[in-house]
Amino acid sequence: MSIEKPLVHAPVPTLRRLPTYHHYLQRLRDEGRPFVSCTLIAEDLKLYPTQVRKDLAVTGIVGKPKVGYAVEELLESIESFLSWNDHHSAFLVGVGGLGSALIGYPGFERYGFDIVAGFDVDASKVGTSIHGKRVLDVDKLPGLASRMHVHIGIIAVPASAAQVIADLMVKGGIRAIWNFAPIGLKVPEGIVVHNEDLAASLAVFLQKHALVSAEQQPEGVQRHVARSAARRG
Amino acid sequence: MSIEKPLVHAPVPTLRRLPTYHHYLQRLRDEGRPFVSCTLIAEDLKLYPTQVRKDLAVTGIVGKPKVGYAVEELLESIESFLSWNDHHSAFLVGVGGLGSALIGYPGFERYGFDIVAGFDVDASKVGTSIHGKRVLDVDKLPGLASRMHVHIGIIAVPASAAQVIADLMVKGGIRAIWNFAPIGLKVPEGIVVHNEDLAASLAVFLQKHALVSAEQQPEGVQRHVARSAARRG
Repeated sequence: MSIEKPLVHAPVPTLRRLPTYHHYLQRLRDEGRPFVSCTLIAEDLKLYPTQVRKDLAVTGIVGKPKVGYAVEELLESIESFLSWNDHHSAFLVGVGGLGSALIGYPGFERYGFDIVAGFDVDASKVGTSIHGKRVLDVDKLPGLASRMHVHIGIIAVPASAAQVIADLMVKGGIRAIWNFAPIGLKVPEGIVVHNEDLAASLAVFLQKHALVSAEQQPEGVQRHVARSAARRG
Repeated sequence: MSIEKPLVHAPVPTLRRLPTYHHYLQRLRDEGRPFVSCTLIAEDLKLYPTQVRKDLAVTGIVGKPKVGYAVEELLESIESFLSWNDHHSAFLVGVGGLGSALIGYPGFERYGFDIVAGFDVDASKVGTSIHGKRVLDVDKLPGLASRMHVHIGIIAVPASAAQVIADLMVKGGIRAIWNFAPIGLKVPEGIVVHNEDLAASLAVFLQKHALVSAEQQPEGVQRHVARSAARRG
């Protein structure tokens, strides 16, 4: 058996595009198309064909000349590569608006990602169910994570509480944290933290918007430059 | 007046870090600290001091030797640079779990970003209020966007409905779309689309987790390699 390039070397932009390919391919399958060419995928998703070929190659699949990819096989290849056929159990802390939305998010379960329980400090929430998932007292998290071998945690609490929750998770043996609180977390070496900061994403979005507006309306640029100059002055 | 480097040239990683600096500086201000050095910021946020200096310089601020930055001034500089002092009105379509969470997200309003109304196709939702914001019929969006000069739209509907909503938004004069549906949108030239794909982010998160797990447990890697080999068979 030859050791092939391990999955972990796939570049992040490729990883981010794979679910998009997957979603697109599901639509083709639903439409009853058995094959698809690299060129068509590229055209529909507004990418370069060479990029598509390279992205899909990381999953171990190779297209056939003139035929392209078998849609079903390509779907399975992406799912397998992204470990969507495995089961990933996760605990979520903070069942407020965002936390509840994440528990009910329709896109996760299909991908083998299952939020098995929610946790909160709010006594009025503890004991209830959200989208069919029990809400438990956050004090129970370390013991339960360890007993149930849950290694993934999601933090959806306010920034001020996030570090305490991260510490609790680490104590319970959680090794990977998806952090929706807008704050950096301090964790021991070997623990994965993946930050999902909507405010940071908003900043990027508003800048893109400002750029396009400025291009379309020259006075916008002038106003900004004037403001910057005033601030420095 | 000398024309300085325009804001739009700030690199995306810098843009993404600015809200983190802002959050950190707010904490310092609350603790009553008037000044902060580059070195301390770097230490607390686990960055290199040169990186911090470079990031903050895009906002037009320069630290003073031995004193560092005035916390209050730095906060204002970041807010001004990110246009958080401006008011950005947005319409959101799809007031399901995620859409409702976004309307109530506490991090947005502080940054000058205001979701002024929600829209939905579901007649049972139209006419209600979510976090104090009215929910209107989606058919009203183009007319209202144009009359109220709302140029920003948020899409929080299922993937299958996203393109129709994007078309409606463009029809109403919306020029920047923050897209939470896991699908690419086709829009005319000059319209900004910023994709927030939680499934794509999940893919990256699970890969990071797989990498660390594989490093910690050699059998994990072997299993993956065996599976890949079997697939290639």
